[in-house]
Amino acid sequence: ENRGRLLVKCPDKPGIVSVLSAFLHTHNSNIIESSQYSSDPVNGTFFIRIAYHCEGLVGKCAQMEKDFEQIAAVHNMEYSFNYLRERTRSAIFVSKEPHCLMELLWEWQNGDLDTDIVVVISNHEDARPFVEALGIPYYYIPANKEIRKQVEAEQVRLMEQYKIDLLILARYMQILTPEFVEHFENRIINIHHSFLPAFIGAGPYERAYERGVKLIGATSHYVTNNLDEGPIIEQDVERVDHRDDVVQLKKIGRTIERRVLTKAVKWHLENRVIVEGNKTIVFH
Amino acid sequence: ENRGRLLVKCPDKPGIVSVLSAFLHTHNSNIIESSQYSSDPVNGTFFIRIAYHCEGLVGKCAQMEKDFEQIAAVHNMEYSFNYLRERTRSAIFVSKEPHCLMELLWEWQNGDLDTDIVVVISNHEDARPFVEALGIPYYYIPANKEIRKQVEAEQVRLMEQYKIDLLILARYMQILTPEFVEHFENRIINIHHSFLPAFIGAGPYERAYERGVKLIGATSHYVTNNLDEGPIIEQDVERVDHRDDVVQLKKIGRTIERRVLTKAVKWHLENRVIVEGNKTIVFH
Amino acid sequence: ENRGRLLVKCPDKPGIVSVLSAFLHTHNSNIIESSQYSSDPVNGTFFIRIAYHCEGLVGKCAQMEKDFEQIAAVHNMEYSFNYLRERTRSAIFVSKEPHCLMELLWEWQNGDLDTDIVVVISNHEDARPFVEALGIPYYYIPANKEIRKQVEAEQVRLMEQYKIDLLILARYMQILTPEFVEHFENRIINIHHSFLPAFIGAGPYERAYERGVKLIGATSHYVTNNLDEGPIIEQDVERVDHRDDVVQLKKIGRTIERRVLTKAVKWHLENRVIVEGNKTIVFH
Amino acid sequence: ENRGRLLVKCPDKPGIVSVLSAFLHTHNSNIIESSQYSSDPVNGTFFIRIAYHCEGLVGKCAQMEKDFEQIAAVHNMEYSFNYLRERTRSAIFVSKEPHCLMELLWEWQNGDLDTDIVVVISNHEDARPFVEALGIPYYYIPANKEIRKQVEAEQVRLMEQYKIDLLILARYMQILTPEFVEHFENRIINIHHSFLPAFIGAGPYERAYERGVKLIGATSHYVTNNLDEGPIIEQDVERVDHRDDVVQLKKIGRTIERRVLTKAVKWHLENRVIVEGNKTIVFH
Repeated sequence: ENRGRLLVKCPDKPGIVSVLSAFLHTHNSNIIESSQYSSDPVNGTFFIRIAYHCEGLVGKCAQMEKDFEQIAAVHNMEYSFNYLRERTRSAIFVSKEPHCLMELLWEWQNGDLDTDIVVVISNHEDARPFVEALGIPYYYIPANKEIRKQVEAEQVRLMEQYKIDLLILARYMQILTPEFVEHFENRIINIHHSFLPAFIGAGPYERAYERGVKLIGATSHYVTNNLDEGPIIEQDVERVDHRDDVVQLKKIGRTIERRVLTKAVKWHLENRVIVEGNKTIVFH
Repeated sequence: ENRGRLLVKCPDKPGIVSVLSAFLHTHNSNIIESSQYSSDPVNGTFFIRIAYHCEGLVGKCAQMEKDFEQIAAVHNMEYSFNYLRERTRSAIFVSKEPHCLMELLWEWQNGDLDTDIVVVISNHEDARPFVEALGIPYYYIPANKEIRKQVEAEQVRLMEQYKIDLLILARYMQILTPEFVEHFENRIINIHHSFLPAFIGAGPYERAYERGVKLIGATSHYVTNNLDEGPIIEQDVERVDHRDDVVQLKKIGRTIERRVLTKAVKWHLENRVIVEGNKTIVFH
Repeated sequence: ENRGRLLVKCPDKPGIVSVLSAFLHTHNSNIIESSQYSSDPVNGTFFIRIAYHCEGLVGKCAQMEKDFEQIAAVHNMEYSFNYLRERTRSAIFVSKEPHCLMELLWEWQNGDLDTDIVVVISNHEDARPFVEALGIPYYYIPANKEIRKQVEAEQVRLMEQYKIDLLILARYMQILTPEFVEHFENRIINIHHSFLPAFIGAGPYERAYERGVKLIGATSHYVTNNLDEGPIIEQDVERVDHRDDVVQLKKIGRTIERRVLTKAVKWHLENRVIVEGNKTIVFH
Repeated sequence: ENRGRLLVKCPDKPGIVSVLSAFLHTHNSNIIESSQYSSDPVNGTFFIRIAYHCEGLVGKCAQMEKDFEQIAAVHNMEYSFNYLRERTRSAIFVSKEPHCLMELLWEWQNGDLDTDIVVVISNHEDARPFVEALGIPYYYIPANKEIRKQVEAEQVRLMEQYKIDLLILARYMQILTPEFVEHFENRIINIHHSFLPAFIGAGPYERAYERGVKLIGATSHYVTNNLDEGPIIEQDVERVDHRDDVVQLKKIGRTIERRVLTKAVKWHLENRVIVEGNKTIVFH
């Protein structure tokens, strides 16, 4: 595969696009897709995502990356080169409710999720049969507050063993400690079953019912140490009415959660999501 | 006009629909539309809205209402008869931003808002020209915390003078006191510029921007003494992204506010909204 | 299960609701849900769907149905009694693309599809493994224009053998003959991969791409002898843009097709859909 | 105003972005926003829209345009320079229904429509009062098939007199001749009251009602000689149900038409829309 993606963040000033496009051109790379955003044209921060095609990229990329170092230094750039042939390795954590896991596995089977799902970890046994049927290792690690440290040690060990790049919380109903989260900064994606910041915390559908809202939602976000307050990647809603009790809200909610998490994961895998402060830039 | 609407709320038990439909049939009324809801078939509360047609309704309705008293007593009903020929009288309160006021006036001009808009009150002079151009009296009453009591006294006086049934807060940016609200229980409709319960209180677009949400919304609700916590009638949202600054969010928000408030007002005028506790039943 | 649903269609005139609710009340049935529609209060057609609860319904329903005959005769009613304990028996037809089949099976496994899926028939072998894994018989019947008669004879035989009430075409890409369709009037539900009546016939995504539409859709409808022109049950759309090629449109379309077909099937199973002429009344 | 927008279309090949960004950089212009699209990286067509800021643009732009000629020649570019200080001059054509006209005037009054609305032309007198109240000249030109030539001659004369760049058909219910359309290639925007290509031609709401669709829509497109078949700029839909008669469909439709036309016009004015064949590229 001869495709790469270059992500750059730097202080905004005239000429950045010119420098980057000249660099790629001199390295025989054709820009296929390019998206940019500046927080402010005057003294702001500039972000760009460039997808490019380069014949013989595998053989050239080391030199390219080396050549880029000088440019990055001059313009004070944070950057990353990403190659489509190096597939992201993902782990999925799930508790009892399987709908988000199922949706991800389905997209993955269809070839629509550009990652290797290499391990599934759960504090329940429920999902084992259909995960193992797909040839994916399944680890049952019971979890509760008392044994959290020990559980997380085991989880971190598995993350390292399986060389995990991305951790997807597909309705994993346990809180993660700051120590755990630090291991995977901007690499843990969660689905919260409400339209954040409404109904932060536990029991969002119950509380949505109590409040009498006319739309319910779901939010996919990166996990930080502040529960349900990490950078939002995607949100969506569905209409409900007075006849919908909590059971019905949960059923409707499942369809929202499935599609919101899947979109967020896809965009992350395509390097479309950039975290800036507590917000995201998403280059659609 | 020979049309009426009967709204009933009572303890649920078998036979209620039978009693009501027999009553209407014996009074030569044909049911045109009927919607019902029970909070629980066992020991719950039953709600029904029946729209009916009755030849010569004007002459018959007094006797009908009298005949209904006994039924209501037997079945412990709260109820109301509403007649389409008796048009609701509405007042609109507005501050500087005219978009919600404009939308309401527009629908009213088109004949799509089944009420008489008899007075507009504002703490700014901005909207006077186009309100008066439509022949609607416009009162400028400056408002702030210090003079709230005196302002509200004047407002209440006008409400009485104009015999107001419904008070619409079309982006009126002053807080109303509990005393004022009590005068108009379930008869003040507000538009809040967020997807409640997210961003209760001031500056919702600013806070939506800070939080980095991917959808913004608006909520129309009855006003109670708890700010932004009254029964929700309608909500809606629009998609936004990282490029939208606060100014842009406000522009997008205006289109949501316009349509959400207008829908809520229309449903109220058609007696489609029943308040139950802090929630609404909306019979679409 | 003590629940039933009564559907009635008759000429509209005053008193119908009264007659029906009195009938149910005298048969000790409590109305749980009721929806009605009149094509025109004057000389129109009246439709009603009543869900009721009746203690000991199994033992009483034969007598109830008998007692209803006289009422029906007097008021010229078409009607049906439906009992929740008598589960509908469904067959699914599918070709190569499994996404709609998968979604239906998933909802069924979750207990959210109130039917017995008793057989799956396909002109391809692809879906066999996961259908049989769920214990559902799978029949491979190759199909093409030349052998249509013989294929349909075999299909009809299976429909009879499995006592099928509802036939779901979950992306079955073969045309059915009028003879076949007649066997199952208003009992075959299809998903068409466009927002009908746009892009009737073959290749709708290709044609949507050519036309440059900004939304694509899917339509679920009852099958009649006019291809893609049967009564529409449900439709939905998603936004697309100039970057979406046909492959991408098909991916986006799959998510629409899945949810539109599933909704239509659920509403059919809940007796919420009434066919009237070439349109449907859907009581949500 | 020191802002400009450069639109370029050329055969795709490596280095285009580099050439363009170097050009802007050497002319002291800072890229604020850039969007690009290639129909195919291999032998496709490349499109780019660049918004830039340049101190003292008014004094420099003539030289810049001259300097660009050589680049354009080398790379076979079609292009246009657009300057924000040169406001587009728009005319609006309307028939009896004023809702689209009103929405445009409203946005314009709010300062949200970046154009000068310099004339309104109608085959009815209805809209005169509120158009003239805003100080916009209003011309009543009766129209029908018989006098089409003469009517269009008068319209073209007014378009020239008022130096019109953009012609907006805000529910103008007369067909334009090919001769007229040719005068304004890709500069006439129409709103069609259906989700095209469904219900091309007259009476779309009537036909939507007859077909029993569950969503109705509106489409904004450039006018070509094929009625309702020009390049689509924007579309949207709303949900309807069996209770909505044609009158109700039209009411719902009006809200869709208003927002779809307004969006399309805004995007056109921001040079976000590029016509390619019978489709549009819209850079959001």
